[in-house]
Amino acid sequence: MLDHPLVPGGSSAIEKGPWHYGANYVAVYFDGERIKLSDLVPKPFEIGDGRCMAYVCEIVSVSDSGAEMVASEPDRTIYQEAAVGVKCSYRGKPGVYFPIMWVNSEWSLLRGLLNGYQKRLADKIAMTKLHPLNPGLKPIAPGTQMGGFCVKGSERTLSLRVIVRKEGAPADLPSFGVTYGRRVFPRTDESQDVVQEAVEILKSNSRTSDVWLGDGSLETTLSVGEPRAVLGAVYKSGFTISGSKVLD
Amino acid sequence: MLDHPLVPGGSSAIEKGPWHYGANYVAVYFDGERIKLSDLVPKPFEIGDGRCMAYVCEIVSVSDSGAEMVASEPDRTIYQEAAVGVKCSYRGKPGVYFPIMWVNSEWSLLRGLLNGYQKRLADKIAMTKLHPLNPGLKPIAPGTQMGGFCVKGSERTLSLRVIVRKEGAPADLPSFGVTYGRRVFPRTDESQDVVQEAVEILKSNSRTSDVWLGDGSLETTLSVGEPRAVLGAVYKSGFTISGSKVLD
Amino acid sequence: MLDHPLVPGGSSAIEKGPWHYGANYVAVYFDGERIKLSDLVPKPFEIGDGRCMAYVCEIVSVSDSGAEMVASEPDRTIYQEAAVGVKCSYRGKPGVYFPIMWVNSEWSLLRGLLNGYQKRLADKIAMTKLHPLNPGLKPIAPGTQMGGFCVKGSERTLSLRVIVRKEGAPADLPSFGVTYGRRVFPRTDESQDVVQEAVEILKSNSRTSDVWLGDGSLETTLSVGEPRAVLGAVYKSGFTISGSKVLD
Amino acid sequence: MLDHPLVPGGSSAIEKGPWHYGANYVAVYFDGERIKLSDLVPKPFEIGDGRCMAYVCEIVSVSDSGAEMVASEPDRTIYQEAAVGVKCSYRGKPGVYFPIMWVNSEWSLLRGLLNGYQKRLADKIAMTKLHPLNPGLKPIAPGTQMGGFCVKGSERTLSLRVIVRKEGAPADLPSFGVTYGRRVFPRTDESQDVVQEAVEILKSNSRTSDVWLGDGSLETTLSVGEPRAVLGAVYKSGFTISGSKVLD
Repeated sequence: MLDHPLVPGGSSAIEKGPWHYGANYVAVYFDGERIKLSDLVPKPFEIGDGRCMAYVCEIVSVSDSGAEMVASEPDRTIYQEAAVGVKCSYRGKPGVYFPIMWVNSEWSLLRGLLNGYQKRLADKIAMTKLHPLNPGLKPIAPGTQMGGFCVKGSERTLSLRVIVRKEGAPADLPSFGVTYGRRVFPRTDESQDVVQEAVEILKSNSRTSDVWLGDGSLETTLSVGEPRAVLGAVYKSGFTISGSKVLD
Repeated sequence: MLDHPLVPGGSSAIEKGPWHYGANYVAVYFDGERIKLSDLVPKPFEIGDGRCMAYVCEIVSVSDSGAEMVASEPDRTIYQEAAVGVKCSYRGKPGVYFPIMWVNSEWSLLRGLLNGYQKRLADKIAMTKLHPLNPGLKPIAPGTQMGGFCVKGSERTLSLRVIVRKEGAPADLPSFGVTYGRRVFPRTDESQDVVQEAVEILKSNSRTSDVWLGDGSLETTLSVGEPRAVLGAVYKSGFTISGSKVLD
Repeated sequence: MLDHPLVPGGSSAIEKGPWHYGANYVAVYFDGERIKLSDLVPKPFEIGDGRCMAYVCEIVSVSDSGAEMVASEPDRTIYQEAAVGVKCSYRGKPGVYFPIMWVNSEWSLLRGLLNGYQKRLADKIAMTKLHPLNPGLKPIAPGTQMGGFCVKGSERTLSLRVIVRKEGAPADLPSFGVTYGRRVFPRTDESQDVVQEAVEILKSNSRTSDVWLGDGSLETTLSVGEPRAVLGAVYKSGFTISGSKVLD
Repeated sequence: MLDHPLVPGGSSAIEKGPWHYGANYVAVYFDGERIKLSDLVPKPFEIGDGRCMAYVCEIVSVSDSGAEMVASEPDRTIYQEAAVGVKCSYRGKPGVYFPIMWVNSEWSLLRGLLNGYQKRLADKIAMTKLHPLNPGLKPIAPGTQMGGFCVKGSERTLSLRVIVRKEGAPADLPSFGVTYGRRVFPRTDESQDVVQEAVEILKSNSRTSDVWLGDGSLETTLSVGEPRAVLGAVYKSGFTISGSKVLD
């Protein structure tokens, strides 16, 4: 089934799911302008109170049957991602919709498109890393600054900054609910089939750790209106995605 | 219709077709092993006599309504491509099917997938260029060597070399017929729609020039058997693709 | 002599000179603010009337003994370059000094540093290409727009645009004189030697063709003051560099 | 002093030292063929018993005065490195000389050249990462496989693999002694100065942790003879480099 896109006789661009993820995030929660956000969130999703999130992260990801690729093809298990998510709901069930999610690997781009993420390929994504043995760096603590950015083409599409104020707990991170998406495979001729499906991402095994809270700021070329940052956060998170379920 | 994949409110990854192409090719025609090739060409296409082609090229491409992007976003109009094509037929109509086509831009990757090409993203594609004013280079002539290669991950997936022997004409280039493809958008859950369509690429406006013929050689990680090169060629070509038509 | 930097027993990053160049330029001549420019041009060079040039180009380059690399290692013979040059003089002899020259290949970076160019590595350089067989593009003519940009890190360090107005001749392009530079190899400890030499680049075999003139505009992060564009130009040029001579 | 290479008035490619490093390594210790190795190690260094090391690592590095760049310009503080080092001695003092060290950032390339490392720019360096919250991955333990590779041009210049057998201590890692290097800035004309200095890297603040030992294997295009792996290791290390001292 998941033989996308090189078949048969060739190696697939994507391994069969479920897919497991472990990520380090630098994130900023912010309020966008609802009128602008409504252009970013397609039906059947209904936009919420304007709350949004933006993040830059590094992800280690393996398929259920392909964990050995961390050693044999490490470049097929690590990527960077930058995204903006908008709080929304579907039939009253709260969630988040990501109008854009930039990544820097082919397999994450294509796998995401199959699951319903609006992925795009970035030219460069970078974010703060602190190494515990670097003599010039201190461990994360109140006052630590972290940041990240994404470049695509000639534009810096997203940049964000967090000043850490205190340690937090997973429950301190705003919860948006489930993750919504949209599987889209348009036609280039009337004879072709089309896929246009609103979906809910099938996410499980979620766990979060190493949470730090603070102030945030961000800039993005995505048309969210003037963003008012309400919280900066740094954390690690892990989860499993088995696919996505079409919403009726 | 063609709002793939960022919608609504965002810039699309792909402009609406038709799309126009102008390319400089270094190509090698070769015979592969039929038993191996049959694994590379899916039904309903029937493999031919084992004749294949491989090329590396640089392409300047614009959509019908977006020619001004050559100035405003030049990185959205130029890419490199490396590919292997296998002679085949559909209901007796001869053509070529490309089991793999590596490119180095997001928009070419996604546009190609929509049209039915088995595109993959390369890490690096390079090929010979001769500049007319470089004091250390001579114009192409018998004896000139040209080459190209494609790298993906840790592998050199294709490399080829041509030694030019004589000037040629467009009619000297082997014709494989039409271009076949396969639009594939697999599911990640039983609730989802799937696209799996054998197609013929809708190509027009073809013109070829600056043809040179000679000897060729190639290496590829694609499982074509031991390739026996029969012709090397260097040429320029232009064409228009308006989409692809589903074969019944 | 030129065994930089991997020696002995390994392949050098740079071939022995002389080196031959063939390039396609999109250029904008402009006036910067003299007070700003004076910070960009080191002694012993004296800044001129504030006239500057900026360009983006694609270069095919080979060493005198390595022309066959265009076929065997084409990625070692092609690169993109973006630069800003400032009119200046040395003991009354007019010339141009480039405070910055971004390139996208290692060998061009290192070779340039050895010759006295202030080279830096770019993340992305792109510029307009027109392909003669692309059905959606017309040949260059009055009204044609061309452009280019350079990205380094999270910044677009240079972008420029030319609107072609008429065909020109090589003599229509402003001449700045010779090319000046500065060879710099600083120390990281008092025990080390230092190189700090003002030089004149040893350039010969210059020829120019395919000149088109028009209006230009540009933006740069380099501190040139508000740039007032005076001429846009598109042209091809070729030359040889054999090294650089230290100025007394 | 350290204004390399863009001066004056522009931003330097390199911050002033000392520079602090924190790195995660996957390493393989091996025996090369002494006759081959002797071509890789220049005088005045004398080759040892043929023992060598190869590694791939990710490094977080900041200058003494620029630690805030981890947040403001994270891409200026993180890079990947792959290298081969050969045991050697200078006047009887044991050490290691790295005939080649590939990196994937400009600033690491240039900073390394100034300090005496034989750095080259890689196209891609990748290595295993294990994320503690990824539901599909287990923490490092006996049996864990890790690996890495480096690609430059069309070649995979180094690839290595470690199968972890047991936890270790810093003292279990073979010590080669100090780090030797060679500062090289060749001339391109007889009028120019040259730098050719054998140096010892001034390294301090060394600390190592998270050591795991096991079996290793490797392949490299560097001419080391047939490598016989003797130990695989995974570890973290931190240190400070203040420059390099010229050897008399």
